[in-house]
Amino acid sequence: MHRVGIVGATGYTGSELIRLLSGHPQARITALVSRSEAGKPIQTLLSHLNGLSLPTLSAFDPDVLAAQCDLVFLAGETGFAMEHAPALLERGLKVIDLSADFRLKDPAQFADWYGKAHTAAAWLAEAVYGLPELTPTDAYKNARLIANPGCYPTAAGLALAPLLQMGVADPDGIIIDAKSGVSGAGRSRVSVEYLFTELDENFKAYGVEKHRHTPEIEQTLQAFSERPVRVRFTPHLVPMTRGILCTAYARLREPIAAETLHAHYAAFYRDQPFVVVRPLGEYPATREVYGSNRCDIGLTVDTRTQTAVVISVIDNLVKGAAGQAIQNMNLLLGLPQTLGLPIAGISP
Amino acid sequence: MHRVGIVGATGYTGSELIRLLSGHPQARITALVSRSEAGKPIQTLLSHLNGLSLPTLSAFDPDVLAAQCDLVFLAGETGFAMEHAPALLERGLKVIDLSADFRLKDPAQFADWYGKAHTAAAWLAEAVYGLPELTPTDAYKNARLIANPGCYPTAAGLALAPLLQMGVADPDGIIIDAKSGVSGAGRSRVSVEYLFTELDENFKAYGVEKHRHTPEIEQTLQAFSERPVRVRFTPHLVPMTRGILCTAYARLREPIAAETLHAHYAAFYRDQPFVVVRPLGEYPATREVYGSNRCDIGLTVDTRTQTAVVISVIDNLVKGAAGQAIQNMNLLLGLPQTLGLPIAGISP
Amino acid sequence: MHRVGIVGATGYTGSELIRLLSGHPQARITALVSRSEAGKPIQTLLSHLNGLSLPTLSAFDPDVLAAQCDLVFLAGETGFAMEHAPALLERGLKVIDLSADFRLKDPAQFADWYGKAHTAAAWLAEAVYGLPELTPTDAYKNARLIANPGCYPTAAGLALAPLLQMGVADPDGIIIDAKSGVSGAGRSRVSVEYLFTELDENFKAYGVEKHRHTPEIEQTLQAFSERPVRVRFTPHLVPMTRGILCTAYARLREPIAAETLHAHYAAFYRDQPFVVVRPLGEYPATREVYGSNRCDIGLTVDTRTQTAVVISVIDNLVKGAAGQAIQNMNLLLGLPQTLGLPIAGISP
Amino acid sequence: MHRVGIVGATGYTGSELIRLLSGHPQARITALVSRSEAGKPIQTLLSHLNGLSLPTLSAFDPDVLAAQCDLVFLAGETGFAMEHAPALLERGLKVIDLSADFRLKDPAQFADWYGKAHTAAAWLAEAVYGLPELTPTDAYKNARLIANPGCYPTAAGLALAPLLQMGVADPDGIIIDAKSGVSGAGRSRVSVEYLFTELDENFKAYGVEKHRHTPEIEQTLQAFSERPVRVRFTPHLVPMTRGILCTAYARLREPIAAETLHAHYAAFYRDQPFVVVRPLGEYPATREVYGSNRCDIGLTVDTRTQTAVVISVIDNLVKGAAGQAIQNMNLLLGLPQTLGLPIAGISP
Repeated sequence: MHRVGIVGATGYTGSELIRLLSGHPQARITALVSRSEAGKPIQTLLSHLNGLSLPTLSAFDPDVLAAQCDLVFLAGETGFAMEHAPALLERGLKVIDLSADFRLKDPAQFADWYGKAHTAAAWLAEAVYGLPELTPTDAYKNARLIANPGCYPTAAGLALAPLLQMGVADPDGIIIDAKSGVSGAGRSRVSVEYLFTELDENFKAYGVEKHRHTPEIEQTLQAFSERPVRVRFTPHLVPMTRGILCTAYARLREPIAAETLHAHYAAFYRDQPFVVVRPLGEYPATREVYGSNRCDIGLTVDTRTQTAVVISVIDNLVKGAAGQAIQNMNLLLGLPQTLGLPIAGISP
Repeated sequence: MHRVGIVGATGYTGSELIRLLSGHPQARITALVSRSEAGKPIQTLLSHLNGLSLPTLSAFDPDVLAAQCDLVFLAGETGFAMEHAPALLERGLKVIDLSADFRLKDPAQFADWYGKAHTAAAWLAEAVYGLPELTPTDAYKNARLIANPGCYPTAAGLALAPLLQMGVADPDGIIIDAKSGVSGAGRSRVSVEYLFTELDENFKAYGVEKHRHTPEIEQTLQAFSERPVRVRFTPHLVPMTRGILCTAYARLREPIAAETLHAHYAAFYRDQPFVVVRPLGEYPATREVYGSNRCDIGLTVDTRTQTAVVISVIDNLVKGAAGQAIQNMNLLLGLPQTLGLPIAGISP
Repeated sequence: MHRVGIVGATGYTGSELIRLLSGHPQARITALVSRSEAGKPIQTLLSHLNGLSLPTLSAFDPDVLAAQCDLVFLAGETGFAMEHAPALLERGLKVIDLSADFRLKDPAQFADWYGKAHTAAAWLAEAVYGLPELTPTDAYKNARLIANPGCYPTAAGLALAPLLQMGVADPDGIIIDAKSGVSGAGRSRVSVEYLFTELDENFKAYGVEKHRHTPEIEQTLQAFSERPVRVRFTPHLVPMTRGILCTAYARLREPIAAETLHAHYAAFYRDQPFVVVRPLGEYPATREVYGSNRCDIGLTVDTRTQTAVVISVIDNLVKGAAGQAIQNMNLLLGLPQTLGLPIAGISP
Repeated sequence: MHRVGIVGATGYTGSELIRLLSGHPQARITALVSRSEAGKPIQTLLSHLNGLSLPTLSAFDPDVLAAQCDLVFLAGETGFAMEHAPALLERGLKVIDLSADFRLKDPAQFADWYGKAHTAAAWLAEAVYGLPELTPTDAYKNARLIANPGCYPTAAGLALAPLLQMGVADPDGIIIDAKSGVSGAGRSRVSVEYLFTELDENFKAYGVEKHRHTPEIEQTLQAFSERPVRVRFTPHLVPMTRGILCTAYARLREPIAAETLHAHYAAFYRDQPFVVVRPLGEYPATREVYGSNRCDIGLTVDTRTQTAVVISVIDNLVKGAAGQAIQNMNLLLGLPQTLGLPIAGISP
């Protein structure tokens, strides 16, 4: 039984980690850290966790965590991990960071998109960007620090990597039109615009001019393209809680049959238990992966405009956050990657 | 490993059984029956089950089921079980029926509320009404046929049984104002009034004059009251998919402190892993048990009107249907009743 | 053309007043007051008002309002009106207050339920509680100050007044189980529990132990009953933005046919353009009055429990707030009460 | 007072016409036609219209309509208008058709995308495609038959016409990623996939391979481009009832400043009361035009990928159907085009 701790336990990704890990056959939650709520049973804050036997919330203390845990998930806001992960790593803990701190390899790019200097740049080279279906398995060997991908980069990366690898699309000017449920905004975004009354029965774009996931998507896709990748990424907010659907468009450099493209995708993901390439003519809906760690993909070729259209769906809190973090944990610990992770979606 | 079959696999309760059982450590799904869709892989109809390894849909055949299974869940429409369960029972199968066919002990009452004669009345005496927290444990011993309770009767029964047992409330004229997500209507209710556009952003009562769960609720509560129980039951439809909240009102025959009532409830459910009596002053929300087999209860005493107010919540497809059916299966098979069943709710 | 001002223009009821009044043939908005946003065009805050020609937001100044307006709507938080309405009234303005400040006739009761002393108690006697269908028409003659009813008291009062007038029900222990969309909470309730992610796909009760609308409901109903009225009022939150459905239960003192009760309601509301008593067997849904100033009512008698069941629906922001305020304005100004008010609901 | 009739009165666009026209100061509804429900008061089917005084539903009879009306709205399914509009036109009635029958100028294109031959091709030349902001005012003079645009073509046309007119974008390979509330599917689409339980908390694409609005969008945009226009159009279904948001992407042929583009849009729509070009940096949300006849537009230039991004929103049942039809009626009858049409959106 591996002993795991969760820092940032009361946020949406933190509590989703708790829910999923509480059913994991090889992991036991031994520490729950919340800086603002230390000392309380977590169920006094999060009633949906009633009935589970869990440690009381505690303050963040690297020495205590080192004594209690083998591995720690960091589910805090951007900036926390680069400040505190080194202390955990130095004490021999394995760390899986769900924030953006260790995702971009280039600290200058981090500074550019996140508006602050990276304070733990020395660890960037060692950090493994853990998108299991696209990350070489070798990378997990001896890894100590995993950067868990963002939700949009997960959906977009899985949608487009096979296409770019194939080399038939123009990697410059790819359009990624993504739609997300509101939980992606987290539990601490308490402002008028996130009130129920403002978002219910409403649909809108946000971050249109600049969104921090853009360079992360490009970094992921660049590994599959010889020519420079440039994406136009527009996220939208859907009046629902969970789910991301990503509609990606790439101009084709030469005609290609939808069947050929589909066969390539099917082969690319053949051995991946969490990616389902849907039959030609079928496109996934977010509800089909609600609560699941799957990513389902549908695609076609629009011959009128010579455009490849690829649609992917994930649950932003599972495959887009907590589920993928557990998948990374499994790989890090040498366990079967599917262990303790739901395959079926919850529907209706 | 127990071999189980599901008849009516493509409906909402059927597919929820599949989802939950696919993670059960002591059960293996060996047969999926759908009369209209036999021969197809179920995932061609229900994409959220992608990635699971499941038997192909087959036609209903008692002999085949007897060869393939130890236990069969019947998740068909009212009328199917009373016609077909006997054939399964006679072949030595254990049967858990999720329809209403074997819930009411009195066939005359069945005829009165369901508008047709009961055709397997001989089995009514043997059928065990399986609401585990209210059904004597002995009843499961040697049981072969379980009548799985309705969703509203589960929520209302758990809310009111302790109060009636206490003997302080007037059992005549109890008011049960219940609110349900739409999935309770099932997947075959295809008519204009169940379209998204008709129910979204809409709230209404239905079955106001007569609802079939009324006698079932009364039958359950009668076991806890010496005087005749009569309830006024009004169900409502909430623009959400899952969840039931039941607000029950009972006139008190004598003043009683909220603390006293609360202590009685806490004691009543002390050993029940799936019932959480919330602290005084706290009331449950449906989302807190979304996807969970729990029932959470909050209560107070309104001293201005001498009324006990009890609020209970369940997930209608889990504790109100498939989850409770699996809890019944566990009890029937001598397994721990919590095996394979989720405790935590999914939130957000 | 009557010149009207709105104080508290940027809240949900304030902006709904703007929307409705902008189409009123006999009223012109001449002042929009917001204490926190003075100086800005309101459309920079509320984009749905784009395209309307409206005054810029200004600070609250009684002298300026007296120069600009004939009548002022106060749509601020509780406490504002009792502090500031007198200054407006003394300057000859007519005032319609949408807050709770002038609703309860008894200042002691106000202090008890609102937790603070009433600072303008001298005006309580003169204030007219304006629920047009239940308030005597004479009351509007020479009136200067209207207390616009609360949303729940409007729905509950219209549902129960005819029943109590008939004298067949027990006025002690009436149960009012009400369900509301979230907009009733207003735009300034910015906290975690009102986030989209916390309320979506969720249903819960609130204010179970004590809700401020209880004495207002009793005061309204008492006018129709010789014996003391006592209600048990439980509000619930529905995952939708607009609409209230009120399910009221009253124990009958003598058997009465549903037809008789229905005929009495039909007669009671015969001349009321905004109340529709639905045919026997038909019950209203909130969507049917979405955006409308109507209140629709359905009813039955449960002979098993001798209970009258009455269901009413309103749009909480229209008949439950801004629409009713305009109806009151029409009556105050001697205009037809339906002027400028929508009858049809918006559906789907 | 102009006398108007509505054929297809019980569908979503038909009943929206009724709601909006019932408040129109220069039009009176004199006929409501429903082939399946003739003889019934419409309120027995559509309770939200309670309280309105309306003609009883009647069968379709051109002679009767000619006697009762000056103008007829056809709100039936595709195919009805091309079969029946000629009979109305020949009797001197003006006709506004909300179906697709007279939108495409080329009958071969109609046959290609709608899968049936056009049976009234002789009228195609005379029919005016009435998207008022893009249709020359002259076209309404002496017009008898108006083809009311589709919902997506309205949103996409208004979003892209100024850009194409400017000549800076590549007209081949424009990407239109559109998202719609469910009411666009209409009231007669009664199948499992449109049930509340199937669409709630779900987001998906549909018509990915081929959608009938594609040629209509291209026809509209072609009028503003010298070079051939080709669009890749992907519609999606949002779990809400009303509203369309269209995100359009066009590759720029030369660098252009966002300010320049914005100034062009502002000038293009300067005199249009129903189009609001939002300030740079501001993007519209569907809720802001809920129930309104407005179209709001926001835009930017992505200099990293040389892409113009234009976002437009409409209410699909108002500006996308019934409201635009009334705007067309106003223009046809020489009335101010804004008469009887809501400008403000309904929010929250």
